[in-house]
Formats: sequence, C-alpha cells, structure tokens
Amino acid sequence: MSDPFSFQALATDGHARTGEMTTAHGVVRTPAFMPVGTAATVKAVEPDGVRASGADILLANTYHLMLRPGAERIAALGGLHRFMNWPLPILTDSGGFQVMSLSALRKIDERGVTFRSHLDGAMHELSPERAVEIQNLLGADIVMQLDECLRLPAERAEIERAMDLSLRWAERCKRAFEGAARGRALFGIVQGGDDPDLRIASARALVAIGFPGYAIGGLAVGEPQHVMLKMIEETTPALPMDSPRYLMGVGTPDDLIEAVARGIDMFDCVLPTRNGRHGLAFTRFGPVNLKNARHADDPRPLDEASTCAAGRDYSRAYLHHLVKSNEILGAMLLSRINLHYYQDLMQGMRAAIAAGRFKDFSEESHARWERGDIQARG
Amino acid sequence: MSDPFSFQALATDGHARTGEMTTAHGVVRTPAFMPVGTAATVKAVEPDGVRASGADILLANTYHLMLRPGAERIAALGGLHRFMNWPLPILTDSGGFQVMSLSALRKIDERGVTFRSHLDGAMHELSPERAVEIQNLLGADIVMQLDECLRLPAERAEIERAMDLSLRWAERCKRAFEGAARGRALFGIVQGGDDPDLRIASARALVAIGFPGYAIGGLAVGEPQHVMLKMIEETTPALPMDSPRYLMGVGTPDDLIEAVARGIDMFDCVLPTRNGRHGLAFTRFGPVNLKNARHADDPRPLDEASTCAAGRDYSRAYLHHLVKSNEILGAMLLSRINLHYYQDLMQGMRAAIAAGRFKDFSEESHARWERGDIQARG
Repeated sequence: MSDPFSFQALATDGHARTGEMTTAHGVVRTPAFMPVGTAATVKAVEPDGVRASGADILLANTYHLMLRPGAERIAALGGLHRFMNWPLPILTDSGGFQVMSLSALRKIDERGVTFRSHLDGAMHELSPERAVEIQNLLGADIVMQLDECLRLPAERAEIERAMDLSLRWAERCKRAFEGAARGRALFGIVQGGDDPDLRIASARALVAIGFPGYAIGGLAVGEPQHVMLKMIEETTPALPMDSPRYLMGVGTPDDLIEAVARGIDMFDCVLPTRNGRHGLAFTRFGPVNLKNARHADDPRPLDEASTCAAGRDYSRAYLHHLVKSNEILGAMLLSRINLHYYQDLMQGMRAAIAAGRFKDFSEESHARWERGDIQARG
Repeated sequence: MSDPFSFQALATDGHARTGEMTTAHGVVRTPAFMPVGTAATVKAVEPDGVRASGADILLANTYHLMLRPGAERIAALGGLHRFMNWPLPILTDSGGFQVMSLSALRKIDERGVTFRSHLDGAMHELSPERAVEIQNLLGADIVMQLDECLRLPAERAEIERAMDLSLRWAERCKRAFEGAARGRALFGIVQGGDDPDLRIASARALVAIGFPGYAIGGLAVGEPQHVMLKMIEETTPALPMDSPRYLMGVGTPDDLIEAVARGIDMFDCVLPTRNGRHGLAFTRFGPVNLKNARHADDPRPLDEASTCAAGRDYSRAYLHHLVKSNEILGAMLLSRINLHYYQDLMQGMRAAIAAGRFKDFSEESHARWERGDIQARG
C-alpha cells in the first residue's frame, strides 16, 4: 500500500524553505521545478533525459490529454505513468487554464465550462467533477481543482466573481475527489487577480475547505513581476506552514529565486523546453541566443560547467548550426541543457536554504546573470 | 600515426562476405550500414544513440555542409568528427548527387558543376578538385570522387557520356587526393546506368586508375529492384576481391540482403531515419505504420525483442499518440528503433556469413517479413 501524501519542511531560511513531499510515486524534493509534459511528453526529451536533469516530478496537461488521446484510453492503457514511461510523480492541471487560452467558443457558467477543441472543433464539457475524474483516470499523484483564471489587468468585480466561482468549484472538486487512491492529493488554487484583499480572502476560504496543498494561480498572466511577488507575499501568510505552496506557470530563473524567497515550494513552466526549441539557452551567465551569428565560429562549449553533457560536448558553433538548420537535434540538446539548468538552480536553492545561505545564493546567481555571457574574441 | 586504410574479408558465403575495414578513426565491420548525417547530424538522434544502435560509421553530405556551415568553417573548428561529436569513421559523398536532386540552375561541363544553392540562391561551383578539397577539409575517412549521376531511365548515349565524364573526374579526384592524411581513402564510383556493358567498362576503367574501394552509384534512382541487382551482378566480377564495395543510397531491408548476397560490403540510406520521422517503423515482421488507428489502444510494445529500449519500453498506443500529435519524441524514438533494426540486420548478416548460413538467414528474414505484423485482438 502506498504511503499517504505528505509534506515536510526540513529547513527554512527566512521565508524560503526546503523539504520533501511524499507521493504514491515517490518523494519530491522542494523547492521543486516541474518540467511540462503537455501531451504526455516533455517535448524533445526522452523520460530518461528528464530524470537525468534532476526532475522528481513533471506536469501534464489535462486539456491536451482529454482531447487526445483521451483520459479513458490512457486509463485503459494503465494510466499516464505507464503510458509515457515516467515512473515518478506526476501533477496534472485541471484543464481550465488551457480552455481559456487555447479553445474557441468557450462558455463558463456555474456548472463548468463548455468549449470547442482546438484540434477538431468538437464540443467538450469540463465541470469540477469531470476535471477530477479525468485526472484520476490519468492517475495523477497531484490533482488540481478546476478554477477560472483571468488575464490581467481585469476589473475587480470580474476578479471577485471568478474567485468566488473558483471557490465553489474547489468545494465540488473536494467532494468529487473523496475516495481517490491513497497517496494522491488534491490541491486548491488561490485566485484573486492583483487584489491583495481578494487573494487573502481566497486563501482563507480554501484553507477553511481544507486541502493538502495550495496553489497560487492566475499570476504570470501579463502583470509585472513586482505585482506577482506582492501577491505571493500577501497570500502565503494565509496558507498553512505545513502544506506545499505551488506557484502555477512560473517562470524565469529570477522569478523562481524571488518566489522561493517568499515561501513557494513548487513551480511549473514551459520556458526551458519552449525556449530550447527556439534556440535559446539558459546558462549560469544568463540567457544565450544560439541563433546569433556571433556563435557561428565559436569553438567553446555553451558552459563547460554544465551538468548536462550536451552543454559541454558540443561547440557553440555546432549548436548555432543546428538551430539555423532547424535540425531536431538542436531542440533536443537545448531542451536538455535548459532542463538541467533549471534543476541545478533548484538544487542550488535547496542546498542554500539547508545551509542558511539563501540570500548569498540569490546574490551570487544575480551577479552571474548580470555579468552575462562572455563573447568569443573576434 | 594512424594505421593505413585497409580492408580484409574474413569470411565468405557464396558471393556474400564479411570483413573489417580499418580507417583512421577505427574499424568498420562489414557488411556495414551507414546512417545518414546529412547536415552533420543524423536527424533526431544523438551521436550516442547512433553508436548504441551498432553503427561503426556514418555518412555526411558534402552538398549540405559546403553550403551550411561551410567546409572551411568546419575545418577551422577541428573537422567534422569534432564538430558533430562523432569520434568514429565518417564517409562523405562528393556532393554531386545532391547537386542534381536539390539545386536549381545547375550546369555541368568538363570542369565541374555550377549550381544555385537551394538555401539562399547563391551560386557555387563544384569541381572534382574542389569536391576532394571539401571532403579533406571536413576530415572524412572515406572520400568519394565527384561523379555525374543520372535518373533512370535515360538514353544509352547520355548514360555513356555521363559515365565517361565520371571516369575523367575520377582521375582528377585521384590526383587531387594525393598527399591526403594517412588512414584516409578515396573511392571511385562505377556508373553506367542500367547498361551491363557500360557498368563493366566503368568498373574496369576505375580499377585501371586504381582505388582502395569502389562504389556502385547511379542505382536506386527509379529502376526496378531486379535491374539494380542485375547491375550489381554484372559489376562486382570486374572489381577486386580485396577492396570494399559500396552500393550508394540503398536501401530497404530486402535490398540490403539481396545486395550482400551479391558481394556488397557497404550501404547508406536515409530510409530508417526519414521513415521514422514519418511514423513508419521497421521491425522483424516488416514495416509498421504507427499512424494507423489500429494502434490507438494497443498496449503491446512495437517489438518486445527489439535491441532498442524504445521498441520495448513504450506501447504502440503511445507511439501512435506521439506520431498523431506530431511530437518530436515520436521522431526521436522511431528513428532510433529503425537504426537499431538496420544495424541488427547487418549484424545478423555478418554472423550468418561467418557461420556459412547466409541463405538460411535470408530465408528466415523473408519469412518473418511475409508473416507480417500481428494485429491486436479487437
């Protein structure tokens, strides 16, 4: 029998904390970054490569998987872990965010959301109950409540309406999740846009319902970073110390450090893989655009200290050539390099928090980013 | 100092032979299949994966590399082996075939070929001397002479003209190759279309010039398989027993067995990787089209006896999903599966020849292909 879901903070440094989250498929070291495996694959990276980067958990998208290949089909094939050959923990989102951003003709009412698939135009419904059912069919270790996520800026009344709806859906999701397999957990999602009072009200209402973990949703949707950080600062005091806190859809390396400094434990973002497919590498010395012609004759590796062999074994000239030639290998190598960079950053933060030197780690990271990439001598 | 280039047949079985070819970058077991690394990458496969499939040598395309990133640039970066992180032998073609098939506004005369790049429209020249120079700049272990390759069918007079021109270019390439680094070899290319007399004349004239290895070019360009096999049968008796014979641009698994049966030692072809990118897998039981809806719910691996983990670790349903979703991982996994299948076929032939049971091996292979893929029970 699986262990029950649990979270334990092992060390804190200011508001930053490092710990362990135990799920039915293993332990997740926090702060954790979850690579995004949208359609049951982290794009251009084999599962072994995702694991080798240091990822303990990945995220998959309910919206994409319910449309293709379908949740019932994945369940019949033994669940998402077996389907995608990833034996470690998986978090699935609720599908709500992608319904808003990808589908056409969506209609939201109290019951849920009706939308037209971006793939074939077929109509689909997603209610709080169905969102939980789909995620349970997939076999997710961490299931997210269905919520309504607005783009910012938005009117306060609109933000409040969406927040209240999300809270009623949170209760329905919790009821629908009763009886789920041991070791799995349902997280509630704090909404409230860029309004501190609404954020606090949302967090308190969710805590009153009671969840084993809490996400902060509806951020990194167009607002400046300082607004996002302010919302985190306002929200986290209203959340229990002994529950994991997950900032959804974030972010840049700097976002990660700043959010961890404010008590966040989990992240997901497409940036490392999406940027990798577009020729952009994350390095200790900031982003490097391999499309740039300055790399064409550069024999140096991208970063001789990369924990990813691809960052050491190939010249910048070769990576530039692959990117310019639209070779799949370019997407493969840069996606892996970026996943390694993100996981190394998380490992660095975990170690720094445990050692009580998170502030130093943050300053050292920023100093390297500010130094920037050193160009080859012409 | 490198060993000199050499070839040794270690065992024969009928006309089929197995042996070893020694180059500056290592030994190639023959019969050998060379995966195609067109633009300095075997598409969608990392070098480690190419090696793990069992490949001892790969082919890279002079035409593509001279246009992008340029031969002088690769030379300045330490040569093609270092550029693409492939430490084993590399054969480069002469560029002639792609000039004919890919470029616009090409003009052939005695001096060479002038053509317009398919990338940016710039004009380029390729003479026999420049083709050798480029391949030496790349650092190829095996350099191919420039030749003129016709599509079939073609008029006899036209075939003879192209064959004679190719022979004069062969002599010029041999002169241009004098003084090349030890361990490297220049191969001549037999032309002559589908005319046995011209094939024999071409082979004899090349042998009179003298090369350490001979290719048969200008086949698999539109003619039926039996014509190709007939041309091989006519040509090989005119070639020295102690030199490797390379059938260019071939082919299907059946082509490989039939050509080895007729004394061929080396092959290259884009089929395993190109088909992999298009959702087609080669298996012991023949080709399998993963796009087909019959795989959508099939939990079985593609081939539980595949030497490629990707052929065992994923369900057909998952591979189908990746292909239908145009996920890069689909191209990655199927390309590796197909490279493994091709290399396993070569290893099977080598072992069968050594054991004196090549005919049995051929019959067993054909019997499995004829049995075909067994569908899942509905």
